[in-house]
Amino acid sequence: MLGPIAWRTPPISYGPWERVTSLLTEGLVRRGLDVTLFATGDSITGAELDAVAPHGYAEDPTMDGRVWEALHVAHALERAGEYDLVHNQLDWLPLAFTAQWRTPMVTTVHGFSGPAILPAYLASASAFVSISDADRSPSLEYLATIHHGIDPAELPYVAEPDDYLVSFGRIHPDKGTAAAIEIARRAGRRLVICGLVQDADYFHAEVEPHIDGEGVVFLGAVGAEERARVLGHAVALLHPIDFDEPFGLAVVESMMCGTPALAFRRGSMAAVIDEGVTGSTVASIDEAISALPAVVALNRRRVHDRAVARFGVERMVDQYLSVYETVLAR
Amino acid sequence: MLGPIAWRTPPISYGPWERVTSLLTEGLVRRGLDVTLFATGDSITGAELDAVAPHGYAEDPTMDGRVWEALHVAHALERAGEYDLVHNQLDWLPLAFTAQWRTPMVTTVHGFSGPAILPAYLASASAFVSISDADRSPSLEYLATIHHGIDPAELPYVAEPDDYLVSFGRIHPDKGTAAAIEIARRAGRRLVICGLVQDADYFHAEVEPHIDGEGVVFLGAVGAEERARVLGHAVALLHPIDFDEPFGLAVVESMMCGTPALAFRRGSMAAVIDEGVTGSTVASIDEAISALPAVVALNRRRVHDRAVARFGVERMVDQYLSVYETVLAR
Repeated sequence: MLGPIAWRTPPISYGPWERVTSLLTEGLVRRGLDVTLFATGDSITGAELDAVAPHGYAEDPTMDGRVWEALHVAHALERAGEYDLVHNQLDWLPLAFTAQWRTPMVTTVHGFSGPAILPAYLASASAFVSISDADRSPSLEYLATIHHGIDPAELPYVAEPDDYLVSFGRIHPDKGTAAAIEIARRAGRRLVICGLVQDADYFHAEVEPHIDGEGVVFLGAVGAEERARVLGHAVALLHPIDFDEPFGLAVVESMMCGTPALAFRRGSMAAVIDEGVTGSTVASIDEAISALPAVVALNRRRVHDRAVARFGVERMVDQYLSVYETVLAR
Repeated sequence: MLGPIAWRTPPISYGPWERVTSLLTEGLVRRGLDVTLFATGDSITGAELDAVAPHGYAEDPTMDGRVWEALHVAHALERAGEYDLVHNQLDWLPLAFTAQWRTPMVTTVHGFSGPAILPAYLASASAFVSISDADRSPSLEYLATIHHGIDPAELPYVAEPDDYLVSFGRIHPDKGTAAAIEIARRAGRRLVICGLVQDADYFHAEVEPHIDGEGVVFLGAVGAEERARVLGHAVALLHPIDFDEPFGLAVVESMMCGTPALAFRRGSMAAVIDEGVTGSTVASIDEAISALPAVVALNRRRVHDRAVARFGVERMVDQYLSVYETVLAR
């Protein structure tokens, strides 16, 4: 399992690629597979851990991420002959060196960033797994789409929420934090915002002026326990994204707690949210405000049950095992 | 010869790493060595040319330089077993994959960019060549310092120059274009500026307002012939750099034409310029203005002869052949 090294695996707060890598790795270990996780040295796993980077480069400004990622990939490459299969979770760099791997490879494409990285994908002999049908590049062939799975035990069901809405994700125009503030304000609801500030200019201009600790509360990047508590006690998640989100982990995590999601109909949202069951997708702020009362009124137990059925980690592990078998049978 | 692929080899205008790679490659071919040049597909060489990138990524905004560089390195890696020696001209990425090369490697460090890339260097089994003693990192061991060599035939000697000063290099605060303008203005001399605009804000704020087509002329990035003509017909090169320049190809090219250089005493400048013979190094704009008349009065034939002796391409080829022999004898 060739994981990313921007953050620890599992990440302490932000780090969606590392989170999914961790959930799958631990799931495979539970099934009895012999797995080595290539990740940061401070990662925590039931698999064998191998590392060259002591900790995540995103946590340490003295580390050049490109240099450490290359050393990390090169180190895994040295050991590749020991394995039946390599699962690449860190995008194009391992693909560029495909001829050197010789071991069969599966690559999870965690959000296809655009045509400029296609040459590495096309040069590669890896099998590709998309994380949603919406995120597929028309220029690539995929073996499967496998939605991320999450661990229900980490996101306990909350039957009786508080009264606030929640916005959860990187603070960046893509994630629509400012639109969430407008929806909450016009709907007369409190809003709790959680997320790593990725675009400081946007935060200072569009988000910070609205933070008052009452109507709009900002908690920053939160850890696993606080994430479960904040998502679980919201009446709904607002996700008015301004980009084609490839998956939307926060949406699924929210649903796992029983909290329905109200999202803009971009990227994978219509595939992830079951309309009228786990939430609703809309096209504008006005539509969001109209749809909100019905979303808040959804049956939280049904939201949770559907999330377990569709996005439980064991379903993800099953699907990846099936992909591994297909690749190894080739 | 594993060359960079930002530009064609040799480059049409800017591209110092590609220029040096070309001069060395052609020199080795003249000596009868069997050389494969890994460079862009539009490169021109007497060696065997092998390429994955059709042209330089710096010339094409649709190309992701990191992706193409990885594909380029991976392709050379595939063929590495065919060679007695790999000469790496493109910095840290090939070094990160050292365990995969197996072929002995020499790396020319074209300007050590800083401690963040050290992990790749330290992981590597390559021998290192610095381009000046001033550019050495205290954390690395070097086999040799080899100053760049240039082809005297490309930069013909000019006995009778025009009356202008020249500033030659990327338009960037590092290169001190604005200081050159001030020195020329206060010395009452015309200034011709050549260079790729690398920092557009700096250009618009500090350079462009002074361009009048008379006292200050701006020619942009120039090709090989114009470079020789502009450098050769200047009375002196102004090089008031604001960084520790690792080598300073333009300084040597200027001297090759007989044009003395007046530089700020940073980086390699004191080692490259023979004080009172090929130019002078100073510490400030005031000192530059005082020193300029003596620099302009230097004997141009002596400037040229010293440049041929110290910075001719054949001397560089000899030194690299000696390094190759040392590495192969290990």
